[in-house]
Amino acid sequence: MTVTDSDTWTGQRVKEADREYVIHSWSVQGALDPIPVAGGAGSWFWDYEGRKYLDFQSQLVNLNLGHQHPRLVEAIRQQAEQLCYIGPGFAERSRAELAEMLAELTPGDLKMTFFTTGGAAANENAIRLARHVTGRQKVIARYRSYHGATNGAISLTGDPRRWSAEPGMPGVVRMLDPYTYRCPAGHPDPCPVCTGGPHLEEILQYENPNTVAAVIVEPVTGTNGLIYPPDGYLRSLREVCDRYGIMLIFDEVMAGFGRTGTWFACDHWDVVPDIVTTAKGLNSGYVPLGAMTVSSRISDWLKDNMFWGGLTYAGHPLACASGVASLKIMQDEHVVENAKAMGERLGAGLARLAEHHPSIGEIRGRGLFYGVELVKDRESREPLVPFNAKGPAAAPVGRLLKTAMERGLYLTANFNVLRLTPPLVIQDSEIDLALDVLDDVLKLADEQYVG
Amino acid sequence: MTVTDSDTWTGQRVKEADREYVIHSWSVQGALDPIPVAGGAGSWFWDYEGRKYLDFQSQLVNLNLGHQHPRLVEAIRQQAEQLCYIGPGFAERSRAELAEMLAELTPGDLKMTFFTTGGAAANENAIRLARHVTGRQKVIARYRSYHGATNGAISLTGDPRRWSAEPGMPGVVRMLDPYTYRCPAGHPDPCPVCTGGPHLEEILQYENPNTVAAVIVEPVTGTNGLIYPPDGYLRSLREVCDRYGIMLIFDEVMAGFGRTGTWFACDHWDVVPDIVTTAKGLNSGYVPLGAMTVSSRISDWLKDNMFWGGLTYAGHPLACASGVASLKIMQDEHVVENAKAMGERLGAGLARLAEHHPSIGEIRGRGLFYGVELVKDRESREPLVPFNAKGPAAAPVGRLLKTAMERGLYLTANFNVLRLTPPLVIQDSEIDLALDVLDDVLKLADEQYVG
Repeated sequence: MTVTDSDTWTGQRVKEADREYVIHSWSVQGALDPIPVAGGAGSWFWDYEGRKYLDFQSQLVNLNLGHQHPRLVEAIRQQAEQLCYIGPGFAERSRAELAEMLAELTPGDLKMTFFTTGGAAANENAIRLARHVTGRQKVIARYRSYHGATNGAISLTGDPRRWSAEPGMPGVVRMLDPYTYRCPAGHPDPCPVCTGGPHLEEILQYENPNTVAAVIVEPVTGTNGLIYPPDGYLRSLREVCDRYGIMLIFDEVMAGFGRTGTWFACDHWDVVPDIVTTAKGLNSGYVPLGAMTVSSRISDWLKDNMFWGGLTYAGHPLACASGVASLKIMQDEHVVENAKAMGERLGAGLARLAEHHPSIGEIRGRGLFYGVELVKDRESREPLVPFNAKGPAAAPVGRLLKTAMERGLYLTANFNVLRLTPPLVIQDSEIDLALDVLDDVLKLADEQYVG
Repeated sequence: MTVTDSDTWTGQRVKEADREYVIHSWSVQGALDPIPVAGGAGSWFWDYEGRKYLDFQSQLVNLNLGHQHPRLVEAIRQQAEQLCYIGPGFAERSRAELAEMLAELTPGDLKMTFFTTGGAAANENAIRLARHVTGRQKVIARYRSYHGATNGAISLTGDPRRWSAEPGMPGVVRMLDPYTYRCPAGHPDPCPVCTGGPHLEEILQYENPNTVAAVIVEPVTGTNGLIYPPDGYLRSLREVCDRYGIMLIFDEVMAGFGRTGTWFACDHWDVVPDIVTTAKGLNSGYVPLGAMTVSSRISDWLKDNMFWGGLTYAGHPLACASGVASLKIMQDEHVVENAKAMGERLGAGLARLAEHHPSIGEIRGRGLFYGVELVKDRESREPLVPFNAKGPAAAPVGRLLKTAMERGLYLTANFNVLRLTPPLVIQDSEIDLALDVLDDVLKLADEQYVG
């Protein structure tokens, strides 16, 4: 085998090897032209030609501490020199410390943690455990949701990527979303679906509540359009689940760890799940890590019952050490507070943009977890591109994202919803810069696609 | 939240926090008493009281380069300082370089790679891709197998842990194993099951080959008893799969990267799969990493068709950089050659032990991937503990493992099969030391449980 000298890796060389040998997620490989990234720092990353991009996505909404946070890098170096790996059967300091910290940081009486390598496996384990604890099989999940891509997780997922894996895991029942902006009944007050409880109750009546192990929701829907539930929604789910002995699982993989300006999204409504799943912001993804943290009641149950889950990299020391460091940095550097403050600046700026951009249909957000719903017409609320738009149908939004990228702002969208999710360490001037570019991008949207 | 000073983490403190807050894999939590591990080097790890253990498992058969290989640690440090993470949508040097290296190292025309965080997700993606490429649904897998714990992977898995996740992913059809030592027909020559082709053909006749997307096997069964197929077995599977347009998937998560004394286990028989899945030895698990590498034909198919898979940590730069370093170390330090040489020493030593230990029923192995099948009686081949033994039924082997551990040798077993899978960097004297301890442990087995 040829060993290539590392110094010969130009951007062009990276690009060529990537195209030839790397399979990229959720793509037709021949249609890709990925930018070779050379480095990053804080809210920015750059290519081999020195072009810098303001990362208004935190990549996949995981870089809560931004690119290459020096203290986090240093913690990885230290743990790497100490102990990169030990099997899940042993006790190890970084995994014990991170689990202890999570027991304190997570809401309510959530206590013991099982560590995975990401959110998908955390959700897989949550569902399996809920089934064993309750002795029931069905799981209720929503349409506007993303829970991961392994077979169990994608079966829970509502978004159309699920179709590629069907028929999936049996026993998943679908519930509608508290998507007030597009409620087909015009969101009457009180709306039976968007208020949660009545809709869940009706489904349980048809399904038999004694067969339902769990309800799994993202407290705030992430990938699928940044949808915030009305006040009272999560509490009403909690109340119904309690009434029927159903485990309530919150997928906080994207919304957790300061993203919405509180440690967890569910903290906004003071509702505590039986199981919370996390990843991404847990350690900013510097090392693959996910977690499932369970209530004291389930923790007690596990003392006397088998936990039927496992993976080689459960409680990975290097990953857990980066989690410990990440949580300490968040506390020491007041990162959640910054997310809240910067989120207010972003929200105010977006509200100003809405005044003169008719393409803005709705702005939804708290902290640094914002969605901007783009419409052709504010009255009809017709989306700028339709649900599940692909190819030419998706082109209008694709063009906006490309324009932003040319201006140095990295954005993504869920069909017609722009996702604004920068690192939680972002600064005033960077928020303002993004708003300036958005202003121009929305001008294009107004001119080309509205009316 | 209390931030605990890192210096106060004694072994006792680790143990207490672990018991209180960490959920361990595949266990009744209250029954555990895990050793707190303080560090490791080469083939050894140690606890907080300085007790050293010779790691004859490579932990979960992943530490092919042993504990804390200095060059691998240094590579992680360098990449951490360069770029810990960038999203899967970009081109990045370490992922491009590792993919290019895998195209060269993996057998035959295997070419493009999708990177995951472990073996389970690699297998999940392999199955989904095989279904899309063929337009068929069913997958044939074996009973004595382990493919991971997420819903799709555990459904492929034969071992009893699968029962905890049933009903799993639809479409899995079961095939028997080439387990010649326990062939119920006494392994007649030629044996229809153990030779592969006739057994697979019979199943296809009942299932309809035009509905079968893939056959997935571990070329050498790992976790479930270190079972080596007879010569000709893999080739006959390949021939049958080719005849019906079925994708042949080799799960080399455990057996790959030098474990059997060749780069891949399938190299022993010169059989090339359509898809190979790897993890563990790929980078010794210092950072969670898995991979699915596909044939040139599938690579071409992917140019024009959607790849329906993805995860936040796909092609994780820190993980891929550790993979690049690991493969370079294996080449520079002749690690595969050492595995072969040390394996011969281990095999010869085990053969000598078999001469005076009637508890040894069969020894199976190549390289450093050995299984020792323990029996109560060589004639009847009655296993020392039964299949799926738990609690008191498993105690005889449990006692042997405990005795080995007290003597400083870390071993595990699959029911009655001792697994001997040390790091590939192990040295003569360490092999000899393990054989000495095994001699004593087997004496105990002979005395207490044989006859």
